[in-house]
Amino acid sequence: MPELEHATRRDNLRRKIAGLGADAALITNLLNIRYLTGFTGSNAALIVGADAARDLFSTDGRYVEQSKTQVPDLPLLVGRASGQAVLAEVGSSVQTLAYETHVTSVDEAKALADAAQGVRMISLQSAVEDLRAIKDDGEIELLRQAAHIADQALADLVAAGGIAPGRSEREIALDLDFRMLHLGAETVSFETIVATGPNSAIPHHSPGDRVLEAGDLIKIDFGSTYRGYHSDMTRTYAVGHVADWQREIYELVAQAQRAGAEALRIGRTGKEIDTVSRDIIAAAGYGETFAHSLGHGVGLDVHEAPNLSQLAETKLEDRVCVTVEPGVYLAGRGGVRIEDTLVLHEDASAAGGTRTDLLTMTSKDLVVL
Amino acid sequence: MPELEHATRRDNLRRKIAGLGADAALITNLLNIRYLTGFTGSNAALIVGADAARDLFSTDGRYVEQSKTQVPDLPLLVGRASGQAVLAEVGSSVQTLAYETHVTSVDEAKALADAAQGVRMISLQSAVEDLRAIKDDGEIELLRQAAHIADQALADLVAAGGIAPGRSEREIALDLDFRMLHLGAETVSFETIVATGPNSAIPHHSPGDRVLEAGDLIKIDFGSTYRGYHSDMTRTYAVGHVADWQREIYELVAQAQRAGAEALRIGRTGKEIDTVSRDIIAAAGYGETFAHSLGHGVGLDVHEAPNLSQLAETKLEDRVCVTVEPGVYLAGRGGVRIEDTLVLHEDASAAGGTRTDLLTMTSKDLVVL
Repeated sequence: MPELEHATRRDNLRRKIAGLGADAALITNLLNIRYLTGFTGSNAALIVGADAARDLFSTDGRYVEQSKTQVPDLPLLVGRASGQAVLAEVGSSVQTLAYETHVTSVDEAKALADAAQGVRMISLQSAVEDLRAIKDDGEIELLRQAAHIADQALADLVAAGGIAPGRSEREIALDLDFRMLHLGAETVSFETIVATGPNSAIPHHSPGDRVLEAGDLIKIDFGSTYRGYHSDMTRTYAVGHVADWQREIYELVAQAQRAGAEALRIGRTGKEIDTVSRDIIAAAGYGETFAHSLGHGVGLDVHEAPNLSQLAETKLEDRVCVTVEPGVYLAGRGGVRIEDTLVLHEDASAAGGTRTDLLTMTSKDLVVL
Repeated sequence: MPELEHATRRDNLRRKIAGLGADAALITNLLNIRYLTGFTGSNAALIVGADAARDLFSTDGRYVEQSKTQVPDLPLLVGRASGQAVLAEVGSSVQTLAYETHVTSVDEAKALADAAQGVRMISLQSAVEDLRAIKDDGEIELLRQAAHIADQALADLVAAGGIAPGRSEREIALDLDFRMLHLGAETVSFETIVATGPNSAIPHHSPGDRVLEAGDLIKIDFGSTYRGYHSDMTRTYAVGHVADWQREIYELVAQAQRAGAEALRIGRTGKEIDTVSRDIIAAAGYGETFAHSLGHGVGLDVHEAPNLSQLAETKLEDRVCVTVEPGVYLAGRGGVRIEDTLVLHEDASAAGGTRTDLLTMTSKDLVVL
């Protein structure tokens, strides 16, 4: 990512810091640090001042060379307990410090308070996560690349006959993972879910030794990461032939998924979108089986803001990236989930002023393999 | 793992809970919950009482079926915010509750205090992590299996000519990862480090596009997980031929590694062991380049207690599992690290009363590939 974007993000955060009445913020969440600086190591702390002159980055000896390349635009403090180190360094010039109370442990908060003697400490709340929810052009391109790798890997797996009776869930999952990695994924986004037959009724099933059989549904939920950004997609196939009950729940979920995606609008709440899909499934009598939320944001983390759920009262904003993933799960028989990842754009020429760009391009038609 | 072991572990924790003056402990760290119950899902909370009658396990709707299989021996409470849910349930019968202040966020601690109105909340400290440092027979067998998969994968990679000039770091890392997964690893323990030529001087290098050349050192730091337990091993090879400076630092690191491993004794501190290896490297004039600690515990986490470092004042106990991994890194030229994972056993017939079992069996002789 160009340094420019990191500097812009820090400037956006400065406004929030000032708005909270703080002189500076201490950032210790590593994904937030990556977002604000580009640093990818496993130990760091960052001070972002309401005034840029206070900015300070810290990491330990292992990452000095790396940080010179990744974070050339910030002063570097080398130290092991980075959070305390930066506080000891800037503490005397700061009156009010905002810190990440949602990710800082009680013990660490005590140590920070000791290091920052006399400094008033307040919560930064989810200020950086809120910024991260709104993707810039560079991020959207990386999200698109990650989704493209996943699309291509699944297409190659299907074309190679990789989803076939006689293969175990684990074999299929490994095959798909290898294809993503060979196509340039840094890593898989999360443990790939391959759930066959009755296992497809388990929303989060770990691939096991069960062997795919004709007559099964197979549910595949997977993603790749590309330069830190995640993809997330679920497709469900019928194998050999398709029973009426399987077709019924497939078409129902597809309808609920389409309706949810089409309902996405800047200014609507996550709850409103969740309700659109949920009502369709409930009206068909399967509401009880759809026991998870409709979707979530995707970015540097595979689950981030904003959520699409009955608890999500925040309005969707321009440039959020979310999944839409309803499911119906019939215990002991099988289940269907269909999931896409989409980005919302303000667009006066589109319906309701929102254009929705689909990142996960694999067909959602019912396919019998 | 047999349920018996989980019940034994909870009983061991009860003694610590009573020792802290608490009636019960709230466990929210998922690895600690896995250790105490066998549960492998991504959302749970656990109450362990000083009296077993208070025990309570909670997870959300996604994991009800799974928890019936994995945690059949504890009462189940289904709820989304599990920590608050179990507190609301048991709060009235508890006077003093110990909780994990080192992993509970400041915000979560506030929510817990609200849910547990009137309950005195104290720190559980690292009580569960301290138990986890001491491995039982079942755990040692799983650690051995994980290490065996890694040994076998590296042997296969070498035998197949997988470490050869012309291959990129990334290709070699993927090849090794695939071999571990095909040999039955659940996942890789951490991002495999393959560092060639000058990159081998970077202690934690992410594999990139650099292509292996004759005359390089290649440093490979990797591991597999098997039923939740990690392995961790580093080997460094010379490629094509070996220069005098490469041989010199290789033999030095091998000597420091051997001395560190031989110094492992129940009753010695991590600092004492670290010093043994560090002094050897420092005496040869390379002390500045060995900028990381000598080793760490390995188990359900790839880095856990106890540490072998200059800050480690705790004495090593019977049945700890640790790495010994000194390194010498010459910036711009190349580096060597050699790492084994070992388990300490009380054994009156062994030197100093400690028998040290090596889990990572790959040869540490200097090999030119």
